[in-house]
Amino acid sequence: MDPPVITFLSDYGYRDEFVGVCHGVIARRCPAARVIDLTHAIPPRDLQTGAEVLRSGLPYMPAGVHLAVVDPDVGAVGAHARRAVALRTAEEDRLLVGPDNGLLMPAAELFGGAVEAVDIGASPERLEPVSRTFHGRDIFAPVAGALAAGARLAAVGEPLAVDVLRRLELPSAHLGDGVLRAHVLRRDSFGNLILDAHAEQLAALGVGLGERMTVGHAGRIHTVRYGSTFADVPAGELLGYEDSQRMLALAVNRGSAAELLGAERGDELAVRPA
Amino acid sequence: MDPPVITFLSDYGYRDEFVGVCHGVIARRCPAARVIDLTHAIPPRDLQTGAEVLRSGLPYMPAGVHLAVVDPDVGAVGAHARRAVALRTAEEDRLLVGPDNGLLMPAAELFGGAVEAVDIGASPERLEPVSRTFHGRDIFAPVAGALAAGARLAAVGEPLAVDVLRRLELPSAHLGDGVLRAHVLRRDSFGNLILDAHAEQLAALGVGLGERMTVGHAGRIHTVRYGSTFADVPAGELLGYEDSQRMLALAVNRGSAAELLGAERGDELAVRPA
Amino acid sequence: MDPPVITFLSDYGYRDEFVGVCHGVIARRCPAARVIDLTHAIPPRDLQTGAEVLRSGLPYMPAGVHLAVVDPDVGAVGAHARRAVALRTAEEDRLLVGPDNGLLMPAAELFGGAVEAVDIGASPERLEPVSRTFHGRDIFAPVAGALAAGARLAAVGEPLAVDVLRRLELPSAHLGDGVLRAHVLRRDSFGNLILDAHAEQLAALGVGLGERMTVGHAGRIHTVRYGSTFADVPAGELLGYEDSQRMLALAVNRGSAAELLGAERGDELAVRPA
Repeated sequence: MDPPVITFLSDYGYRDEFVGVCHGVIARRCPAARVIDLTHAIPPRDLQTGAEVLRSGLPYMPAGVHLAVVDPDVGAVGAHARRAVALRTAEEDRLLVGPDNGLLMPAAELFGGAVEAVDIGASPERLEPVSRTFHGRDIFAPVAGALAAGARLAAVGEPLAVDVLRRLELPSAHLGDGVLRAHVLRRDSFGNLILDAHAEQLAALGVGLGERMTVGHAGRIHTVRYGSTFADVPAGELLGYEDSQRMLALAVNRGSAAELLGAERGDELAVRPA
Repeated sequence: MDPPVITFLSDYGYRDEFVGVCHGVIARRCPAARVIDLTHAIPPRDLQTGAEVLRSGLPYMPAGVHLAVVDPDVGAVGAHARRAVALRTAEEDRLLVGPDNGLLMPAAELFGGAVEAVDIGASPERLEPVSRTFHGRDIFAPVAGALAAGARLAAVGEPLAVDVLRRLELPSAHLGDGVLRAHVLRRDSFGNLILDAHAEQLAALGVGLGERMTVGHAGRIHTVRYGSTFADVPAGELLGYEDSQRMLALAVNRGSAAELLGAERGDELAVRPA
Repeated sequence: MDPPVITFLSDYGYRDEFVGVCHGVIARRCPAARVIDLTHAIPPRDLQTGAEVLRSGLPYMPAGVHLAVVDPDVGAVGAHARRAVALRTAEEDRLLVGPDNGLLMPAAELFGGAVEAVDIGASPERLEPVSRTFHGRDIFAPVAGALAAGARLAAVGEPLAVDVLRRLELPSAHLGDGVLRAHVLRRDSFGNLILDAHAEQLAALGVGLGERMTVGHAGRIHTVRYGSTFADVPAGELLGYEDSQRMLALAVNRGSAAELLGAERGDELAVRPA
C-alpha cells in the first residue's frame, strides 16, 4: 500500500530549524507518512504569494493532506485572532490544514471548494502547552499527521460551517475598452514578472503570437513582443510569454524584466495592442 | 512496521552537495531509513548554536538515530584531534552520532545522559579511504545508516567510557542582586534575539506579564515591555516575550531587535525591573 | 523490499517551488519512490558544474534513477534545440534522465558509459500540454517516476543510438615541461578552490606532502605548502591539499583562497615545485 502523503508549504525559510521540527512532529504522529516540501521560501507573512503558490502547485501533488502555514496573525488575540482549520475539498477529498486567513481557499476552490471544515485551535491532537508563535509545530503539524494516519476530520477539531471560512481575493486582470489591466503577481529568481492575466485574455485583446503590444507602467510605455522563447527577442529586450502555469509573464532576454521596468509585486500594468 | 528514523543536523549549508551525498551514503547502507533534516543552516563551525538547536529540537523528533555534524576540528591530528563517537542515552535509547567535541552532550543530557559509547574513528562501517575533510560522508553517515539498519553500538566502534566524552557548557543566565544577567544565544531570521534566560527567572526578578523592565547593553539602557504578542507594543518598540522554546526573547514590533540594540550572539544583557 | 530510489540534481535553487513541484509529479507517478536531493544549488545554467557534481556524487548514491536538470536551452527550437533523453549505463544499470546537452555523460562514463538510450521529448509519460520552460515538471520528472515504477527504457521514449548523445569535455589539468597547468573547477562556500588536478599529478611534478610549490595566477606567484590539514600553515597562509573528492584544492587557513588569489571558476593556474 502506498504511504500517505503530506505536502508542506510555509514561509519558514531555510535558516532556522522550524521546518525540520515540523517534520519531526509529523513523523512522531504518523511514522509512515511521506512529506513533500512544496516550498518554504514564501516571503515572510506574504499571504497572497503563499495562496497563489499553493493553488498553482496543488494539482501536481498527489491527493493527501496539504499543510500550509503563512500566518502573520499567529498567536494574536481579540480583533486580530484567526481560527486554525482543517477542511476537505469537494473533489478528490483533499485535506487542507492551516490558518483560516484565506491561504487555503484559492487552492480549495480548484477542487470544488470546501465541503467540510473543523476548527482545530483546541484540537485533541495539539501539543501542549501551545506556544504563542509556533502553531506550525504545536497545532498544524500534529493535526496533519493525525489526518495522514487516518483520523477523520471530526476527530481533530470542532465542526465549522464552511461558509464562515475566510476568503482571499487574489488579483485578477481585467479586460475592457481595449486595455488589459494586469498586475504583477510575483517576480521569480530570474527577474521575470508573472502577471495575473491569461494568454486567452491577450488573444481577446487582439495580440497574437509573434505580434507586439505596449505595456504601460509608472508613466512609461514599453514595447513588448509576444513570443514563446527568450530567443525570440534580441538580448536586453522585453518579451511577453505564457509561463509554465499558463500565466502571461514578462522577461528580458538575458536580463531582468523586474529591473528594466522597475516593477514590483502588486503593480498594475496597462497592456494594449501595439 | 515503521521505517527507522535518522535525524540529521549540520553546518553544511545548502550551497554544496554535502548534505545530498550523506543522504546517498545513508540510503546505500540502510535503504529503509527515513531521514529527517533537522537543519543544515547552523553557522559554519558554530558548535554552541549546533548544540543548542540539537537540544531544543530533539524532543520533537521520533526516537531513532540522531546524526549531528558541526566539526571545526575535522581531520586534525595531535593536540587538536577529536574522537568520532556514537552513544546511547539512558532514556528512550536514542543513538547519537557525531564528533566528540561536546555537540551531542546537551541533547544527550535531556535524555538522561550517555550510558554507552563507542569510538567510531576506525569503525568497520567507515568508507575507505577516509578523507581528511568530509567525515560526515566517510564516518558519521555510514555509521548512522548501520545503526538504523539494526547494528548494535558495539559492532560499529571501540568501547569508550562515557565519562571521557567531552562536555560543552552552554551559557546560562544568572540572577543575583536584583539583576538578571542574560546572554544572546542567537538571532533568528526576523531579527529577534533569543536569550539564555527562562520566564521563571523574569518572574523571580519581579517582572510580570504586561510589566516593564530595562535592558542594559553596550552602555545603553532600553525600556522593554514584557508581553505575549508583538501587537502588545506599538510598531518600532521593544517587546520581551517567551519564545516557542520557553526562552526569554526580545523583539521589535514590525522591526528587528538585533538592529535596534546592535546586539550579537554572546553579548551580555543586564535585565532589571523598570 | 527496498523502495526504488530517484536522485535529483538541478539548478532550480530553493527560492521557487520548482523542486517541490517535481517531487509531487514523481510521487503521483511512483508513490513508493524515495527521492534523494543531491543538490539544487548548481549555479543557474552552469552545465559544467552540474556535470562535475553529478559525476562526483553519483558513486555515493544507491543505483537507481538519476534525474538531473541543468538546461539552458529548454524550450529552444531550431539550431539551439536539444533532445531530452533517458539512458542506461553499462555498469550497475543506472538510469540517467535529463537534457541531452552533455550534463549526464561524465557521470555515465564512470559507470562504463551509456549502452541504451531513448529520446523522451515525446514520451507517453509526459504531462500535456508540455510547457516551454519547465521540462523538469512536464518531461523529466514523470519519466523518472515511470522508470522508478518499473517501466522499461523502451516504454518511455524512442530508441536513440548512444553514439549521438552529446558529450561534454570537462577541463583537465595538463602536466608538461615541469609545469602543472590546472584550472579552477569551483569555489566552495568556505572560499576553497577546487582544481582539476589529482594528487598523483603533483607527485609526478615532484611535490610531496609537506613540501612547497608555487602557484602562478594573474601575473602573481604565490608560495603554497602541500599539506593535509589547514593547521599545517599559519592563519592567513595558503595550503594545497587533497580534497574529499581526491582533487587538488587550495585553501587559506582561517581565510578564503578565492579572495586571496582573486581567482574564479575557469581560471588557469601554473603550478611548479618551489
